[in-house]
Amino acid sequence: MNSYEPIPVPASATGCMPAHFSNCSGGVCAALGIKASGIHAGFRKNPERKDLALVVADDVSVCAATFTQNRFCAAPVQLDRKRAATGRIRAVMLNSGIANAATGEEGYAHAVKSAAMLSQALGCPEEEVEVASTGVIGPQLELGPFETGIPAAVAGLSHANDAAHDAATAVMTTDTHPKEAALAGILPSGTLIHLGGFVKGSGMIQPNMATMLAVVTTDAALDAVSAKKALLAAVQGSFNKVTVDSDTSTNDSCFLIATGKAEGPAITEESDDFSVFCAALKELCQELARQIASDGEGSTKLITIDCVGARTDEEAETVARSIANSPLVKTAVFGNDANWGRVAAAAGKCGVPFDQDQVDIDFLGVPVCRKGRPVPVDEDHMLELFRADEIPIAIDLGQGLAHCRIWTCDLTHDYVSINGDYRS
Amino acid sequence: MNSYEPIPVPASATGCMPAHFSNCSGGVCAALGIKASGIHAGFRKNPERKDLALVVADDVSVCAATFTQNRFCAAPVQLDRKRAATGRIRAVMLNSGIANAATGEEGYAHAVKSAAMLSQALGCPEEEVEVASTGVIGPQLELGPFETGIPAAVAGLSHANDAAHDAATAVMTTDTHPKEAALAGILPSGTLIHLGGFVKGSGMIQPNMATMLAVVTTDAALDAVSAKKALLAAVQGSFNKVTVDSDTSTNDSCFLIATGKAEGPAITEESDDFSVFCAALKELCQELARQIASDGEGSTKLITIDCVGARTDEEAETVARSIANSPLVKTAVFGNDANWGRVAAAAGKCGVPFDQDQVDIDFLGVPVCRKGRPVPVDEDHMLELFRADEIPIAIDLGQGLAHCRIWTCDLTHDYVSINGDYRS
Repeated sequence: MNSYEPIPVPASATGCMPAHFSNCSGGVCAALGIKASGIHAGFRKNPERKDLALVVADDVSVCAATFTQNRFCAAPVQLDRKRAATGRIRAVMLNSGIANAATGEEGYAHAVKSAAMLSQALGCPEEEVEVASTGVIGPQLELGPFETGIPAAVAGLSHANDAAHDAATAVMTTDTHPKEAALAGILPSGTLIHLGGFVKGSGMIQPNMATMLAVVTTDAALDAVSAKKALLAAVQGSFNKVTVDSDTSTNDSCFLIATGKAEGPAITEESDDFSVFCAALKELCQELARQIASDGEGSTKLITIDCVGARTDEEAETVARSIANSPLVKTAVFGNDANWGRVAAAAGKCGVPFDQDQVDIDFLGVPVCRKGRPVPVDEDHMLELFRADEIPIAIDLGQGLAHCRIWTCDLTHDYVSINGDYRS
Repeated sequence: MNSYEPIPVPASATGCMPAHFSNCSGGVCAALGIKASGIHAGFRKNPERKDLALVVADDVSVCAATFTQNRFCAAPVQLDRKRAATGRIRAVMLNSGIANAATGEEGYAHAVKSAAMLSQALGCPEEEVEVASTGVIGPQLELGPFETGIPAAVAGLSHANDAAHDAATAVMTTDTHPKEAALAGILPSGTLIHLGGFVKGSGMIQPNMATMLAVVTTDAALDAVSAKKALLAAVQGSFNKVTVDSDTSTNDSCFLIATGKAEGPAITEESDDFSVFCAALKELCQELARQIASDGEGSTKLITIDCVGARTDEEAETVARSIANSPLVKTAVFGNDANWGRVAAAAGKCGVPFDQDQVDIDFLGVPVCRKGRPVPVDEDHMLELFRADEIPIAIDLGQGLAHCRIWTCDLTHDYVSINGDYRS
C-alpha cells in the first residue's frame, strides 16, 4: 500500500436518506391508497412470464411524470406527455414484450384504445389513465391481450406486498430480477408518510430525463406543482445518473403518484415538509437507480464513478459520464484491473479542459494515480478488493469544488451474448 | 424481399481514388526517397516481437502532422507538436509496448533524449526527428532499448518493401496484422507520384484530429503549407471518421512526409495538381482507416454507417457516430441481426432534431424501415447477406442533403476478452 490519502468524496454523494426515515417493505404498494397487480396477458408467448402490470390509486390522485428525450419516441410516451400535464391520475398500465415504438398512427391509436379499456373497467375518465410499454421496437402492439388481460388484472388488484411484487415482475424484459424499494418516515410536521416504487431496465440504458420504466408512489399530500418539482429533482439525481451502455431508450418513462392518504397537512413548495420529502424521494429513486446499474445486461459489478474537483457540475458530469461509458474502463473492471490509464484517457477525451499533472485517481478507495503519475500498489491486495460487488472509481481534476456521481456496470461476455443473440 | 428502393448513398462516399491512380506495393516506402526498418529493441519482453520502427527520408523533407485532442496526452505528442510546426522533418521513430503517457517530466525528457540519439546516428539536427509511442499508459519509457536498438534499426534502413512491412509490424499492439497501403498515379501536370503509409490501431480508437499512429509518405513536391492543408483534409475524411470503441487515445499521431523526389513542378495550393493530390491522399488514408475499423479489437466485421438526408454535415456526423458507437447496434451486427430499432434509437438519442415518421433505414442495401415503420424482409436472405465482411447500414433523415460516412466494427466476446484480460 502507499501513503497517499484517498480522494475525499462529498458525503452528499453517498446517500440522502433523511433523519427519521428508513427502508420498509411493500414496494409500490407501500404508499397508502395504492393497489397493484401483475399477470400474464399474452404479449409474450411464454405463459409463465407476467407481461401486464397495473398500479391503481383508490381515488384520483396527483401525478407528475418525466419521459425520454429520444426523438424516436414510443406511442405511449406521446400520449402520456399530454395526460401527465393535467397533474391528475388514477392508474398506470404497463406491458412488457412489445415496445409500441415505430408503430405509426396505428400504434398510437392502440395506446389510446388500451387506456380507454382500462378506464372503463375502473369507471374513471380516460384522461386519468397512463400507459407504458417496453420490449421489441417495430412490431404492432395488438389489442387482444388487453381484452382478456385487463379484466383479470383489475380483478387481481390488491394493496398487498405480493401484488406490488407481481407488478414489478410483469415489467421485466432482460432484467434478471424485479427491482423494488420503499421508505417510511416522519416529516417535520409529524406526518408519517410512505414512498414506494418499482423500476425496470437492464439494456438501452442511459436515461435522459427519465428512466426506462418506473412507477413511484407516495401517500404524502403533495399538490401537482410540488410533485413535479420533487420528481424532476429526484430523477435528475438518480435515474439520469445511470448508464449501462450509453443507449437512451425510446420508451423511458417515470411516473409519480401521490395519493394524499397520509394524515397531515398539505405539502407545498414552501412547507418545511417539502425539502425532507424531496430528500426521501431522491433516496428512493437512487435505490432503484442503483438496482438498474447493478443489473445492467450481463453485468457482474456495480461501478460508481465520482468526479470531484471540477470547475462546474456540468464538467464533473461530462467527465464522470465519459469514464462510465468507456468500454475500456468497463472491461477493465470486469477483468479486476485497476487500469487507471483508461480512466485518465476517458477523462481526457471528453472536451473538458484540465491539467493532466493535477489529476488524482483512486480505485476502490486506493490511490493509484497522483498528479498524473502512477502510484505503486499492492496488486494482490487490489485483486482482493476487486471481489466486492460495488467498485468505486474516483477522479479528482484538482480544479474546483464541483462533483458528480454516475452509476454504471462492467462490460462482459454476457452483454455481448444477450444483445448478439437477442433475436437470433 | 420488398419493393422499396435502397437509400441512395452519394458516390463520393464510396471512395476518392482519382483517375490515373491505382494501388501499388511498397507501403510507406512506395514514395521515392523513403527508407524504413523495424526491429526488436527490447520494449517488449518477447524477442520475437518487433517494437521499434524507423521511417527516414534520404534528405530533409516537408512535414505536416496532426495529434490527439485528448487532454491527457502523451510525452511524445507534447514534443512533436512543437517540432511539426517547423514543417521540416528527416525521421520518425516509433516504439510499441510502452505509451510514454502519464510519465511526467522524466517521460518528456526521455522522448527528447531518444530523438537526440537518433539524430546523432543519422547526422541531422535534433529538431528534424519526431517520436511516437504506443502501448501501456503509466510505466516509464526506459532509454536502454534505444541505446542498442537505434544503431540496429539505422543499420537496417532500406527502400525495400520488406523494410516497410517490418516498420508496419513493429508498431502493432493488439492489432492482428500490419496495416499498409500505397498508391501511384499521374497528376494533371504529368508528374508520376507515389503515396504510401502504415497505421496501427485496434482499441482505444475514436481518433480526434488524428489516428492512433500513422505515417504517410509521398514523393510529391509539396510545400509545408500545402502539405498541412492536404493532411488535415485527408485525416478529417478518413481516420477521424473511424470509431472502434469511442475511446480517444492519449497518443494519436499522424505524420505526413513529403520528399519531393518525384520529378515535376512544385505543388502549391493554387496548382491543378493539388486537388488531385488531396484526393489521392484522402483515398490512401481511407484505405488505412478502413483497415483500422475492420481490425477493431475482437471484431469480425467492418460496419459502414452512412447518414444521408441530414440538414448539415455536423448533424449527419453526430447521427452516424451515435449509431456507430451504440453497443446495441454493434452487438446486433455480431448477431447477424438487422435490428433497425436499435439504429433508430441510437439516431434519436443524440440530440439532432428530426421527424421519426420521415426516417428510412437500410441494412446491407435492403430497406428495413420506411417512414419510421418496419418493412417486411426475407430473414433467410438477410442472414445470407450478413455473411459479408463489410456490413453497410444507411439511414435517411429525410430533412436535407448533407451526408456523413463513419466506419466501425461489431462488438464481440473477443473485445471483452482482449480488454478484460489485458493486464491479468
